[in-house]
Amino acid sequence: MRGAFALGTRLRGVFAVMKHLLSLEKLTGTEMRAILNRVAEFKAHRTSHTRPLSGQTWGLIFSKSSTRTRVSFEVGIRELGGDALFLSATDIQLGRGEPIRDTARVLGRMLHGAVIRTFAQHDVEEFATYSGIPTVNALTDDEHPCQILTDIFTFEERRRESIAGKVVTFIGDGACNVPASWIFAAARLGFELRIAAPKKYWPAPAVLRRAGAGDAADWDQHARTSITERMPIGAGMLELIEDVKLASRRADLLYTDVWVSMGKEAEKAARLQDLTGYQINQGLIDLARPEVLVMHCLPAYRGLEIDEPTLEAHADTIFAEAENRLHVQKAIIAWMLA
Amino acid sequence: MRGAFALGTRLRGVFAVMKHLLSLEKLTGTEMRAILNRVAEFKAHRTSHTRPLSGQTWGLIFSKSSTRTRVSFEVGIRELGGDALFLSATDIQLGRGEPIRDTARVLGRMLHGAVIRTFAQHDVEEFATYSGIPTVNALTDDEHPCQILTDIFTFEERRRESIAGKVVTFIGDGACNVPASWIFAAARLGFELRIAAPKKYWPAPAVLRRAGAGDAADWDQHARTSITERMPIGAGMLELIEDVKLASRRADLLYTDVWVSMGKEAEKAARLQDLTGYQINQGLIDLARPEVLVMHCLPAYRGLEIDEPTLEAHADTIFAEAENRLHVQKAIIAWMLA
Amino acid sequence: MRGAFALGTRLRGVFAVMKHLLSLEKLTGTEMRAILNRVAEFKAHRTSHTRPLSGQTWGLIFSKSSTRTRVSFEVGIRELGGDALFLSATDIQLGRGEPIRDTARVLGRMLHGAVIRTFAQHDVEEFATYSGIPTVNALTDDEHPCQILTDIFTFEERRRESIAGKVVTFIGDGACNVPASWIFAAARLGFELRIAAPKKYWPAPAVLRRAGAGDAADWDQHARTSITERMPIGAGMLELIEDVKLASRRADLLYTDVWVSMGKEAEKAARLQDLTGYQINQGLIDLARPEVLVMHCLPAYRGLEIDEPTLEAHADTIFAEAENRLHVQKAIIAWMLA
Repeated sequence: MRGAFALGTRLRGVFAVMKHLLSLEKLTGTEMRAILNRVAEFKAHRTSHTRPLSGQTWGLIFSKSSTRTRVSFEVGIRELGGDALFLSATDIQLGRGEPIRDTARVLGRMLHGAVIRTFAQHDVEEFATYSGIPTVNALTDDEHPCQILTDIFTFEERRRESIAGKVVTFIGDGACNVPASWIFAAARLGFELRIAAPKKYWPAPAVLRRAGAGDAADWDQHARTSITERMPIGAGMLELIEDVKLASRRADLLYTDVWVSMGKEAEKAARLQDLTGYQINQGLIDLARPEVLVMHCLPAYRGLEIDEPTLEAHADTIFAEAENRLHVQKAIIAWMLA
Repeated sequence: MRGAFALGTRLRGVFAVMKHLLSLEKLTGTEMRAILNRVAEFKAHRTSHTRPLSGQTWGLIFSKSSTRTRVSFEVGIRELGGDALFLSATDIQLGRGEPIRDTARVLGRMLHGAVIRTFAQHDVEEFATYSGIPTVNALTDDEHPCQILTDIFTFEERRRESIAGKVVTFIGDGACNVPASWIFAAARLGFELRIAAPKKYWPAPAVLRRAGAGDAADWDQHARTSITERMPIGAGMLELIEDVKLASRRADLLYTDVWVSMGKEAEKAARLQDLTGYQINQGLIDLARPEVLVMHCLPAYRGLEIDEPTLEAHADTIFAEAENRLHVQKAIIAWMLA
Repeated sequence: MRGAFALGTRLRGVFAVMKHLLSLEKLTGTEMRAILNRVAEFKAHRTSHTRPLSGQTWGLIFSKSSTRTRVSFEVGIRELGGDALFLSATDIQLGRGEPIRDTARVLGRMLHGAVIRTFAQHDVEEFATYSGIPTVNALTDDEHPCQILTDIFTFEERRRESIAGKVVTFIGDGACNVPASWIFAAARLGFELRIAAPKKYWPAPAVLRRAGAGDAADWDQHARTSITERMPIGAGMLELIEDVKLASRRADLLYTDVWVSMGKEAEKAARLQDLTGYQINQGLIDLARPEVLVMHCLPAYRGLEIDEPTLEAHADTIFAEAENRLHVQKAIIAWMLA
């Protein structure tokens, strides 16, 4: 392991200054703002800016497939002047066959950056450590930082004001990667996040503690009886609420995600039953602020987490949100290289 | 749906002028000629011409695999200055998981053009409508326009004369996409197309009507007793003939396609039996014009639709035909952008 | 076949001067040196040199997957100014469906070069013959020329002296592609190669004869009783030795490969049992020269062909060896085009 470290140092200069984007947990609010501040520039000029990735090849290492994430990264890397090399689960099985530290040491000497979509957060972190190349978390079981930075950019682009002090209501499974990244964002950027979910889909106390909830998160998740928990969390405020109507009141953003994501098909029937009622539709929108935005990180299942008329009425926002993945990720890469 | 339309309009200028290549049915003869006229230029200078796709990434969305089509498009797009992003059925399942109109709205905001190989013609058309980016049909169950434009270019390149007024004999399964595109081409460009096939493999009357056969196609396909049907079709003439020898007489082009194409493996035994005798070989060539060309859109199954000596004797034409996919498709893309 | 030949000639000039890298068997020592001499230059300047592949697209046709080989070729081809198009076994089944000579004739007209990883050596050779484009063997059942050229470069880079006259000890399955390429390299470049393996894993006499062992290889492999065979082989010397300690004495390089490679999983239990004891570890290193290098062409299975401490102690060499695939392969391609 010393060898790997020494190697990285020798080849790439001071190892410690290398930037990765592995989670929102590890990012400061200032760093998030540094990324967000440059997105508009990348959106305005898709190809005419400088080409910071010129002569570089970045690897996309995807243990699970995703059209949206893949296309946005491949196009973005190319528009930054680089080349993208896509490695699917068929091509490479991260952590199977050979230890990640070996794969990372090999690829780190050939590639100039890596975008990884996999299961264990630890795998992405181990890859980043051993490869010695800038590494982006493009979805793990723990976090989805690129998506949430995109959502925040989209909110501020559409509303022309900061998300600080606003109310974001996440509706659906609050125990997975997307709400976890929302929690860290709320703590860093200072907005109120409400998670509207049945209690068994509330985020784990460990996540809340790591986000800065302190003693407020110090209860036993399964023993709690309250149907609402409210706690300060870093610079923000977090509310866990079973009542989706209460959670939607005066919200600035109603946000949802697919109920049965990849790998959770076995729990499908239970999830559909548990989450019935947690659907974004006109009834909830009527409770929110008049200027409320509706977002969805897609793919959308009409009639489940959102109904058809609501999706189509807010399609302009939702597909702008999808497109903004491209621009935000270019800003992330530029920030990593700066 | 209004949202999607408005969006396309706003982002990309006047939506109505966007050109797609979704079928030969929808193309006029003048449009076909506009494409064909530029192929020689692209063939003469593979990389030295202007780079109309500079800064663009085009998606190849292939629900079924195809080396030939894939390689010709990827190389062509790159030679036009763009980048190609290949999405296989493993990466993206068009129309499964999420509606095509959602996939199209997302990809249309990230990509600059799309080349689609899939099953339902309707899917390609829906993608073109919602994506708002130039879209090419690279094979559907209904049509294979890029192949037939290539065949016509190859005919005229080799014969140094127009296909108008010539006799093209298609031998084999006349009810699928390749002969359908031939029918629309005959109707637009004014040549005689003979389809030599057992009656149950004759094209559907609906195709003939759409190609301009009018009342001539107005019989019940299954009830017809004639072993030959001859009808004017647009600017051309169509003959459906069971007798392959009769169909080959004085032909300028003998053309065949694989008997059991992808997805039809279950019908293999029946097809081999039904189509026995519909093989291009010296016996048929002797009946055609002395200057007859033999073409095959590949892959070739020696001993079935063509015999080995005939394939190898005409390999120079057949592999030029394969190569010309590259040049014709570049001309198609350039025409779409013009 | 005459047609194909004539075609290649007409399109590409004098066919006979086209260079491929299909094996080390077919390469002279002078040719190996011509390649090796330019590697340092490609390593020093990954992108700043001339771009000999500008405007070209090279196909990577891989019947079996390999992250290392794929990434090194894709990155290398791009750094040489070209584009790489990866075709996996899902995309193209070389030799299935259609004869290789058809696939080769089609791809040879669209692509500018090919890198092939497949099973039968004959398939790569047939592709090279019919495609008329420069073709690289990126692993077959018979040879792995790119790997062994890389190993030799790495040896000379680290030791700052020629491999001629040195002692290379290959430990493990001596009957497969990697040791075969080592044998041809020893014969051409004049070093001593020792293969430490149980007798049933010794290389086939046919390989030895083709490498220049002459009468020395003229025994019945299965009948031989000696536990050591020593024979001159071209400009070099070959020893086949059952005793791994004897084989490691005063060695300049201890080299191993995975025991159970792709496609040999069925023999796994037998191989593990047969090869127990043929592990590179400190015990063997103590017998070698003090300046001995340890190499592994990866992936490594700790506790089998090498132990963990030895792998990590020599990680600097082993991962440099992996990286050097990139630089050596660029030199190979440049040599083919020269």
